[in-house]
Amino acid sequence: MKIQILGAATTKFGELWNVSPRELAHEAIHKALTNANKQPKEIDALFVGNMLAGILGKQANLGSFFVEGLGVHVPAFHVEGACASGGLALHAAINSILAGQYKTVVVLGVEKMTDYPQDDITAGLMAAGSDEERNAGATFPGIYALMAQSYMQKYRVSEELLASVPVKNHYHGSFNKNAQFQSPLTIADVMKSTKIAEPLKLLDCSPVSDGAAAVVITREETKIKGRSVYISASEVGTDTLALHDRSSFTSLTSVVTAAKKAYAKAGIIPQDVDVAEIHDCFSIAEVIATEDLGFSQRGKGAKDIADGKRTLFQGKTITNPSGGLKACGHPVGATGIKQIVEIFDQLQGTADKRQVEGAKIGLTHNVGGSGAVAVIHILQI
Amino acid sequence: MKIQILGAATTKFGELWNVSPRELAHEAIHKALTNANKQPKEIDALFVGNMLAGILGKQANLGSFFVEGLGVHVPAFHVEGACASGGLALHAAINSILAGQYKTVVVLGVEKMTDYPQDDITAGLMAAGSDEERNAGATFPGIYALMAQSYMQKYRVSEELLASVPVKNHYHGSFNKNAQFQSPLTIADVMKSTKIAEPLKLLDCSPVSDGAAAVVITREETKIKGRSVYISASEVGTDTLALHDRSSFTSLTSVVTAAKKAYAKAGIIPQDVDVAEIHDCFSIAEVIATEDLGFSQRGKGAKDIADGKRTLFQGKTITNPSGGLKACGHPVGATGIKQIVEIFDQLQGTADKRQVEGAKIGLTHNVGGSGAVAVIHILQI
Repeated sequence: MKIQILGAATTKFGELWNVSPRELAHEAIHKALTNANKQPKEIDALFVGNMLAGILGKQANLGSFFVEGLGVHVPAFHVEGACASGGLALHAAINSILAGQYKTVVVLGVEKMTDYPQDDITAGLMAAGSDEERNAGATFPGIYALMAQSYMQKYRVSEELLASVPVKNHYHGSFNKNAQFQSPLTIADVMKSTKIAEPLKLLDCSPVSDGAAAVVITREETKIKGRSVYISASEVGTDTLALHDRSSFTSLTSVVTAAKKAYAKAGIIPQDVDVAEIHDCFSIAEVIATEDLGFSQRGKGAKDIADGKRTLFQGKTITNPSGGLKACGHPVGATGIKQIVEIFDQLQGTADKRQVEGAKIGLTHNVGGSGAVAVIHILQI
Repeated sequence: MKIQILGAATTKFGELWNVSPRELAHEAIHKALTNANKQPKEIDALFVGNMLAGILGKQANLGSFFVEGLGVHVPAFHVEGACASGGLALHAAINSILAGQYKTVVVLGVEKMTDYPQDDITAGLMAAGSDEERNAGATFPGIYALMAQSYMQKYRVSEELLASVPVKNHYHGSFNKNAQFQSPLTIADVMKSTKIAEPLKLLDCSPVSDGAAAVVITREETKIKGRSVYISASEVGTDTLALHDRSSFTSLTSVVTAAKKAYAKAGIIPQDVDVAEIHDCFSIAEVIATEDLGFSQRGKGAKDIADGKRTLFQGKTITNPSGGLKACGHPVGATGIKQIVEIFDQLQGTADKRQVEGAKIGLTHNVGGSGAVAVIHILQI
């Protein structure tokens, strides 16, 4: 597989009350096209990752909706898979190029979450859950709290150790001018923040965000500014929607399955990965992910993060240099594409103050629901 | 391109108050797998076309949601493009096979529309429209009525001539035991039915329906029962959401663009098509489609239908042998796949009482919104 990324960009992430989904999308698309040195008329298709525009914004037909802004009426597609919508849209786009159907395509991830009542947002997000969990009144913080409880008991891990995840990610976010939160945190800050679902506190949880991200990809090797970056693997795994049907609470089968296939396709091992963007919707999610992806041994994920092994300028396999979902923000459909933008910048060596020195291999880990779907991409120079 | 259809099936279409989306989906998937002589464990991925499950049913993450019923956790995807969701899901599935990513996949189209208040259904469907049209209070009957007015004035066509579309399609539906309506109509029945939006009457409009359809496709040539059927073209076109930005009210650019590419890819001309399933959401839609697809000359589409040129057992290029959206029903996300099921049956020679004798080449025409997106598939033996 030889898919090249020609350009990539995100909008600012945050509570962007004054912009519409359309404005967010067009800003990201046009920035990515400019970064790729491409005109809209050179694009063969648009793929859109979005979860909530229908449920919250009552807008469907999103391929056609967002392609209007390109000014060219090329084929356009909306791919949905909850918080993995962005990664899944990229997977579909890559397949369409490898099929020979399209040559150069834009993949957009976009989400507008803040202009709705809080209850509608919570109910909207639970659209990714199972009937049983929803009917029992569960929310995603509650579901991930069950995983955290299970993990903490199994491996004798403390809440303070889990708190090292948001501390690291807010530190990383402090170098990212597009991040929703750019202020550092301490373990004490996390520990004293409001309890959301035992043992998760407010600062263990990713925020409600608006934002968009876009990448331009192609099948042809094209000379671009700086280093060429390729996508060497794009793999998807699924599992049951509900936790109670899963074989484990401390590992996501969807991630393990997709990662195994992705490493094989790229011909690498986990230790080859220099930098990864991880789906840290909650602190526990990043801890489990670093183990499922093979970066840390089982039960050691939190300790490795606390020891600085995933932290910028000191670690070996740096996770979430963008600040992750926690600090950079989590506009759900945009997240999977924002992760690609960050790794593209890292591998190009244009990640500014958060540059991982000498990064050659990067990975993105994008999860939908509580692990019902996972998408892994591997990027290499 | 050499994509083979191994099996295909639909549920009954209609007002199915006693079944859930999950039950509909699983019935269609398992019937299609049985028809294909495949076990769930032989499937590499699931593609789902659906428009309204999020908006009406508050269920997202539909790939994972429906793959649960397969009992195997393969990669699964939800593709949305309003009433073209089914066709777009098939397009994505075909690309994923041609890319070499998956070998044998199930494509499901499913929609549950009847368990919601009528106003919610109307508002939900308008999620496929433009802000301007929605804010002006337009509904799809209203928008297609504008096209009908424009067409009737331009070509001096009467309401009676347009009424020949539902008369033909109800006649066809009378041979289809899965159709929502299996009773014949007369021109007089259509003319005296309730006015919905001048000049469209109730019997010019496709119904609100529940239903699901599924196909099993593969990249390998496999010996199956009866004739082998191949998909020789899968093409997509887009246009603006709103009518007022279009170059014409009497032709859909999205259809013309996609059809031109599809004919070229399949190496055929319109006159080669023996049988076609057309997106007759309203009478005018089938008339315009037969012209946009090149079956009839401009302005002659309605007359050709009235003259019996598209009618079973007498016509040359038969349209909507299933009964079309009007008589077979229009569970929006399922429609694009149901069209494939019908053409597969026709080309296999297993279409029972509605068999088009000697059918070798078939076409499906699936449209989203009022023409913002169109998907054309060409099937051949």
